Amino acid sequence: MISALIEQTKKTAPVVVGLDPILDFIPAHIIEKAYDEYGESLAAAGEALWQFNKEIIDHVHDLIPAVKPQIAMYESFGIEGLKAFAKTCAYSKEKGLLVIGDVKRGDIGSSAFAYAIGHLGKVQIGTNCISAFQEDFITVNPYLGSDGVKPFIEVAKEEGKGIFVLVKTSNPGSGEFQDQILNTTNESKTPLYELVAQKVAEWGAEAGEDDENSYGYNPVGAVVAATYPEQARRLRKIMPQTYFLVPGYGVQGGKAADLTHFFNADGLGAIVNSSRGIIAAHQSERYQEFGNALFATAARTAVEDMIKDIKGVL
Amino acid sequence: MISALIEQTKKTAPVVVGLDPILDFIPAHIIEKAYDEYGESLAAAGEALWQFNKEIIDHVHDLIPAVKPQIAMYESFGIEGLKAFAKTCAYSKEKGLLVIGDVKRGDIGSSAFAYAIGHLGKVQIGTNCISAFQEDFITVNPYLGSDGVKPFIEVAKEEGKGIFVLVKTSNPGSGEFQDQILNTTNESKTPLYELVAQKVAEWGAEAGEDDENSYGYNPVGAVVAATYPEQARRLRKIMPQTYFLVPGYGVQGGKAADLTHFFNADGLGAIVNSSRGIIAAHQSERYQEFGNALFATAARTAVEDMIKDIKGVL
Repeated sequence: MISALIEQTKKTAPVVVGLDPILDFIPAHIIEKAYDEYGESLAAAGEALWQFNKEIIDHVHDLIPAVKPQIAMYESFGIEGLKAFAKTCAYSKEKGLLVIGDVKRGDIGSSAFAYAIGHLGKVQIGTNCISAFQEDFITVNPYLGSDGVKPFIEVAKEEGKGIFVLVKTSNPGSGEFQDQILNTTNESKTPLYELVAQKVAEWGAEAGEDDENSYGYNPVGAVVAATYPEQARRLRKIMPQTYFLVPGYGVQGGKAADLTHFFNADGLGAIVNSSRGIIAAHQSERYQEFGNALFATAARTAVEDMIKDIKGVL
Repeated sequence: MISALIEQTKKTAPVVVGLDPILDFIPAHIIEKAYDEYGESLAAAGEALWQFNKEIIDHVHDLIPAVKPQIAMYESFGIEGLKAFAKTCAYSKEKGLLVIGDVKRGDIGSSAFAYAIGHLGKVQIGTNCISAFQEDFITVNPYLGSDGVKPFIEVAKEEGKGIFVLVKTSNPGSGEFQDQILNTTNESKTPLYELVAQKVAEWGAEAGEDDENSYGYNPVGAVVAATYPEQARRLRKIMPQTYFLVPGYGVQGGKAADLTHFFNADGLGAIVNSSRGIIAAHQSERYQEFGNALFATAARTAVEDMIKDIKGVL
């Protein structure tokens, strides 16, 4: 799937739209229609998320290789929210987009395997093999260690899909555990996230390239946040064959000028995500002229501006 | 909610049944009935999980304070699986059990908050506040740091619920990152999981006791695995006021004799989980006499034996 990501990125731009809607982002006309139909219920919330996403997808799908729905925003609304998540994944794929499920799952072996087949693979039910959520990539939390991560890699490999392992996250407090310096024997001071990065590189090397169109990249990617560009410079060296999923651009503070270290000399190796900056563009000062009615056009314009911004520094 | 957990544990035993079904555990008569009704579909799988759980819950609810459904086993089957998860949570509560959702969620602030309200709290939809999954406790992954954990604590505190933060997990490879010795200034060699434990103790102290019936315990618990009893001895000292959720007993290798360090002198402070050892008891040599028809009686007997085993060492 990393081949498909590269191919579609080459045709468009290394930009991902994060579909992380909250009800406050959604224009009143969509919300009210959903309330009219379903009352002020979980079903109405799910319907509003889905209609909002659909319009965004319709307006941006030709500009970008992939979307990244954050499942937490859907899980908030229980089953009805997760139906909107599943519909969003399916519709994005219909529109030719790759889907990166930002699920940050991680568990011990058997449970990790269960997550992996649910999101990336197929479950065996009698004589049928059935896909549940059908993402192309998911994000994975490494705290449990290799035996918690490898089931995801095995399923990804088998299905021709991929994962992005959390290495250095975008939040202000990500350093609290991730930046802890380890008491290793070598002289170079290794923070925890660099050890995780070394493992990601190992896991990726073991998994190997997808095919001849992967440009040397493998299905085990890494989450490396735009908000920590200095750390990214070293991480790029530790993980030369690893694709980076880069959150934190835009509203969280990451700047295009800082993104150069995230890419390899081949111009590949990273995709940059923006969520709020795109899907809530109509609520920002910069794009407020579009108003609520044209929220998806505002999103499209914000994507075009983000692409210009990022292509300008590569 | 820690008060309720203590009260119900005092009436029963510090034992939790992990509701982590896979289709292979479920007797043929349940599976076939589900296939007859829904075909070999995700809906059939969800129905089978739910019917299996229901019978287990009916047979064990008077013996234990809580159940711990592992959401991965349901998420495997997508929306239909998650419906079974939600029904299992609701039915367990109807039967007077507390529900510990083993969801291991963890994310940056806004997403962590979304998970927290979905699992422990309420979402605001128009003028309604609605609960989605309704667990009493959930497990939380700390890799993202305090700002990723605190939204869970805030919601738990507000709702009178609780969390268990992953400190030292039960899997064989949990040491890969968790046991890394940190290059701290003090002489005592601190592994990462002890730093996480120190934070758990801090977060718990900040959150404070639930009420006068919490016996000094607070809503921020810790996952400390039965498979690492030596580590638990120190963790008990670092987190004296913290309730431990203890996985890894039984099939994973944790023994009752090793569990003494997990409890405080007051006989409280820990609840021990067993999943496969209980719900798949009918497939084990020890309880095979019950056969498939009496799988839930086998589970009850296995719970009774586990309680004897654990009470024997306390």
